[in-house]
Amino acid sequence: MSDLKEITNALLKFRNERDWEQFHNPKDLAIAINIESSELLEEFLWKKNDEADINKVKKELADVFSYSFLLAEKYNFDIKEIVLEKIEENGKKYPISKSKGNSTKYTDL
Amino acid sequence: MSDLKEITNALLKFRNERDWEQFHNPKDLAIAINIESSELLEEFLWKKNDEADINKVKKELADVFSYSFLLAEKYNFDIKEIVLEKIEENGKKYPISKSKGNSTKYTDL
Amino acid sequence: MSDLKEITNALLKFRNERDWEQFHNPKDLAIAINIESSELLEEFLWKKNDEADINKVKKELADVFSYSFLLAEKYNFDIKEIVLEKIEENGKKYPISKSKGNSTKYTDL
Amino acid sequence: MSDLKEITNALLKFRNERDWEQFHNPKDLAIAINIESSELLEEFLWKKNDEADINKVKKELADVFSYSFLLAEKYNFDIKEIVLEKIEENGKKYPISKSKGNSTKYTDL
Repeated sequence: MSDLKEITNALLKFRNERDWEQFHNPKDLAIAINIESSELLEEFLWKKNDEADINKVKKELADVFSYSFLLAEKYNFDIKEIVLEKIEENGKKYPISKSKGNSTKYTDL
Repeated sequence: MSDLKEITNALLKFRNERDWEQFHNPKDLAIAINIESSELLEEFLWKKNDEADINKVKKELADVFSYSFLLAEKYNFDIKEIVLEKIEENGKKYPISKSKGNSTKYTDL
Repeated sequence: MSDLKEITNALLKFRNERDWEQFHNPKDLAIAINIESSELLEEFLWKKNDEADINKVKKELADVFSYSFLLAEKYNFDIKEIVLEKIEENGKKYPISKSKGNSTKYTDL
Repeated sequence: MSDLKEITNALLKFRNERDWEQFHNPKDLAIAINIESSELLEEFLWKKNDEADINKVKKELADVFSYSFLLAEKYNFDIKEIVLEKIEENGKKYPISKSKGNSTKYTDL
């Protein structure tokens, strides 16, 4: 079994043991991803990069991943496939010749 | 090679070809995750669950994953390990007996 | 008429002319605040403080305010009152003696 | 004194008593707005509109306002002016004839 499948299965087992599928509609899962990503960001608030507590960053990032895996599962997205497809699409928005060493958004390139 | 490693490698290749590592410090990566997760959420704004455009949800969720993978890589986190560890920790916060069929936050259980 | 009331009235006029009250339930307004606050944050992504475009920051912050005023109006909150009350409450969480010159969160003080 | 000025002054007094101006750069204030707006949104997570706790919504919305007022003050923005200007600009993006009763984003109108 692939690692991606193994992670998804562990999350579904946790969810189903608690009978939480009823709450996990796509809109609320997208809200949950937002909330967790803000808790992650809070670890850096008023701080420099190296002042964040790595152990807390680890836990908050794990929460972002968890809800992202659950939302992907809702739509039967293959995570490897959607990320690789998006990288290809971004390659067109950000051609190396224009974006090398340059963080400008594609809409302003 | 595991799927997780393969995704990370594709993201690093894309980043390095554009010489973007200089911008990708942990704090800005955490900000990027937040921005992408809000773009994902925007697909559901003023809408019911089934009114979201699945193709757009797919792309925005791929962006959330991409920056999450890149932040994990910064800290050398093993994604499978941190998610499984967090599930175990959450199991203590949300014992099945108290949380079955109940979406209450653990601080209020 | 107070400035706060004048701003709220201008926002309600704009909303009502477009018959948008039907979309503006509290949950979606809270989502809208999140989305606008991420667009605001995007002006600082990969940047130092003084590299943000002030004119864009102004517009995105105006959007955050707009939806915040509309959510306050939904609940008939008096904005001055709720902010002053929260300052008072925060004064207890963050006593000057413990928090002077110190950005530590109250839960860790 | 206008209500807007009174709120800003109360926030500055609170900040200055704690010597926190050193932390309140624009980028971190924008991050703080994001974090508070996610805490606000968390009051609606897994819930219907009328299931949110109004007292908690009030406090979280007050926090969103507080950091928004502080960021506006950093740039010397006049809050009434920037909101009224943005309403005027949005009036062009969303002409009544096209957007009445229609929540479609202007980029798709």
